[in-house]
Amino acid sequence: MKVALDMMGGDEGEKASVLGLRHYAANNNCDDVEFVLFGDKSKIENILKSAAANFAFNIYDTGTNVVTNDEKPASVIKKGRGTSMFEAIAHVAKKKADAVVSSGNTGAYMALSKMLIGTINGIDRPAIVSMIPNLKNKTVMLDLGANTDCSSIKLVQFALMGQAVAKVLLKIDKPKVGLLNIGTERSKGTEPLEKAYDLLKQEENIDFIGFVEGTDITNGVVDVIVTDGFSGNISLKTMEGTIKYIMHILKQGFDSTIVGKLRYLACGSVFRSLKTAIDPRNHNGAPLVGLKEIVIKSHGHSDYIGFAHAISVAIEFAKSDFVIDIERMIANTNEVAA
Amino acid sequence: MKVALDMMGGDEGEKASVLGLRHYAANNNCDDVEFVLFGDKSKIENILKSAAANFAFNIYDTGTNVVTNDEKPASVIKKGRGTSMFEAIAHVAKKKADAVVSSGNTGAYMALSKMLIGTINGIDRPAIVSMIPNLKNKTVMLDLGANTDCSSIKLVQFALMGQAVAKVLLKIDKPKVGLLNIGTERSKGTEPLEKAYDLLKQEENIDFIGFVEGTDITNGVVDVIVTDGFSGNISLKTMEGTIKYIMHILKQGFDSTIVGKLRYLACGSVFRSLKTAIDPRNHNGAPLVGLKEIVIKSHGHSDYIGFAHAISVAIEFAKSDFVIDIERMIANTNEVAA
Repeated sequence: MKVALDMMGGDEGEKASVLGLRHYAANNNCDDVEFVLFGDKSKIENILKSAAANFAFNIYDTGTNVVTNDEKPASVIKKGRGTSMFEAIAHVAKKKADAVVSSGNTGAYMALSKMLIGTINGIDRPAIVSMIPNLKNKTVMLDLGANTDCSSIKLVQFALMGQAVAKVLLKIDKPKVGLLNIGTERSKGTEPLEKAYDLLKQEENIDFIGFVEGTDITNGVVDVIVTDGFSGNISLKTMEGTIKYIMHILKQGFDSTIVGKLRYLACGSVFRSLKTAIDPRNHNGAPLVGLKEIVIKSHGHSDYIGFAHAISVAIEFAKSDFVIDIERMIANTNEVAA
Repeated sequence: MKVALDMMGGDEGEKASVLGLRHYAANNNCDDVEFVLFGDKSKIENILKSAAANFAFNIYDTGTNVVTNDEKPASVIKKGRGTSMFEAIAHVAKKKADAVVSSGNTGAYMALSKMLIGTINGIDRPAIVSMIPNLKNKTVMLDLGANTDCSSIKLVQFALMGQAVAKVLLKIDKPKVGLLNIGTERSKGTEPLEKAYDLLKQEENIDFIGFVEGTDITNGVVDVIVTDGFSGNISLKTMEGTIKYIMHILKQGFDSTIVGKLRYLACGSVFRSLKTAIDPRNHNGAPLVGLKEIVIKSHGHSDYIGFAHAISVAIEFAKSDFVIDIERMIANTNEVAA
C-alpha cells in the first residue's frame, strides 16, 4: 500500500508532517506501507534523518513550490502544478498511491481533488466529514464543507456516505443514521429536510432513525449525523467555542496560586482525561467523501500528533472498499431518485 | 409595577412557581412590585403560606384550567380562555400588568401572546432571545424561536431587537452586534445573510461588527448574535449537548471510589464554579421580543431558582423603555426598507 503525503501544508509545514510521519511509524507496523513524500527534499531530509527511518518512503522534490493558505482555489487550479499539494493529489489520481493526506488550504485541496481525481458518478461536490466524540464512542458528522445549500437528494447522499465512513472508522456494520433538525417530529423543519426524511425512510440499506437535534451530536444515540454544510459548520464551531469556554473556567480554578497548584496536583488527572477526550488531534483526519480516491484533510493547525492520526485514518480507508462501497450505494439511490 | 405570573406552567407546576416567587421576594426589594398570580388558588395558598408572604400579591383563581405541554397552539387559541396562561397574558394585554412570566407550553405561549397582545408594527412573528455565558459576560442570541426561514429584513429586525435586549439586561449603551455565518468574509454564506450584512452596515444606530462564527458565541467578541431560528436552535442545542458531554467526563473522574471522593474534596470548588457558570437556571427567562408588551418565557424544566430568575428578568424589562425603544427602531428600518 502507498500513501502520498503533502509535507508542506499546514501552519507548521514540513516540521509537523515529518515528525508526524515518524511518530506514526514509531507506533504502528509499517511493513506493508510505503510513504510517498511531496515537498522540499532538503528540508524534509533534515528533519527526517533518513538513515534512522524505520519505514519505506521516497521523496518527490517539489522544492519551494507550496500552496499558501490565502491562495484562492481558482488560481491554484490554474497555477498549482508543481506544488507539493498538486503533485501529491496527482499521484493518487494516477493510481500510483492509494490515499493522500494534506494539512494545506482546504478550498484548494477540495478544488484540486475534484479536478485531478474527480467525483463519484452522481456526486457534484465532495463532503467533508468530521469525527466528534460522544458519550459512547464517536459521531460521524457531515457535511462540514461548503455545501451550504442542500437539496434533499444531497442529504440522502451524505447519509449513505456517512454510513460508509462509520463502517470504516467505527467498525459498525449497520450504523444508526440521524438527520439534524430543530425537532424530532416529521413535521418539523424545512421542506428539503422533510423530503430527505421520506427518502431515507424508503432506503432499505440504511438504519435511519429519523430527525435528531443538536443535543444528539454528543450523546451517542446515533453513529452518523447528516446536515447541510451551513448548519454543520455553525454546530461544529459552536462546539469548539463551548469547549474553549469551559476549559477557560476550569483553568481559572487551577490558577498559579498555591491552592490552585495543589488542586491541580489532586485532580490534574481528571482535567487531563477531559483534555484527551476532546483533543482535536485525536480526531484529526477528515475524509473528503464523494471522490473517486481516498483524500484525507488534516487540520491546518495540527501538530505532529494530529498529522500522525490523519495518516492512520488514511491507512484505515486505504485498507477498505470505501470508494466502491459508496459508488454502489449512490448508483442505487440515483436509480431510486430517477 | 405589576407582574402577572402563570403559576401552573412547567414540569413542576405551581411548586416551582410559588417557591420561585418566595425565593425572589426573599432576595430582592419588592416594595414597588405587586404580583398577580394566575392558577389554582388553593394549591398556591398551600405552598405560599400567604400569612408569611413579605410581598404584595393577589390571586386570580383559574382552578384546574391549565395549558398542557402537548396541546397544539391552534387548539389553545380556540379553547384556551380560562387557563392560567391565557388569563395571565390577557391581564397584560389589558394593561393591568407590566409584564408576564410563564414556564408553560412555548408554542401556546407564543400564539396566545401574538393574539392577545399583538406584535409591534412591522414584525409578524416574535423572536425568542437566549442569554448565553461568554468569557467576558453574556451574549444575547436570537432567534431561538421558530423563525426557521429568515429574510434579510427579519435578520435586521432581530439585530435591532437584540440590541434593545442588551441595553436592558447587559446595561450596555452601544452593544456590539454580529451576524452568525460560516465565515467572516462578506462573500461567505447565503444570499439573505449577505443582504442583511449590507443593510446592517447602513444602519447608523447599531454597532454592527459584521459576520461572526460559532466560536464567537462564547468568546465575548460581540454582545449580540443574530441568526435565523433554525441555526440558532441547532447551535444552542449543540452547546447543551457539549456541556452535558464534558460534565459527564468530569464526573467520571469524581467517581464513588475513595480516590474520586478525595479528588472531589480537593477541587470540588472548581467543579462547582463551572456548574454555576453554565447553570441554565442563572440564565433563565427568555424574552419574546417583537410583542407590544413584556412577555418572558421561563424554561419548562426550570425549578424555583430558575423561575425566580425569570421574575427578575421580567422586572428588569418592566423598568425599561424596551417596547417603545424597539417600536421606534423598527419604524425607522421599515422606512429604510420601504
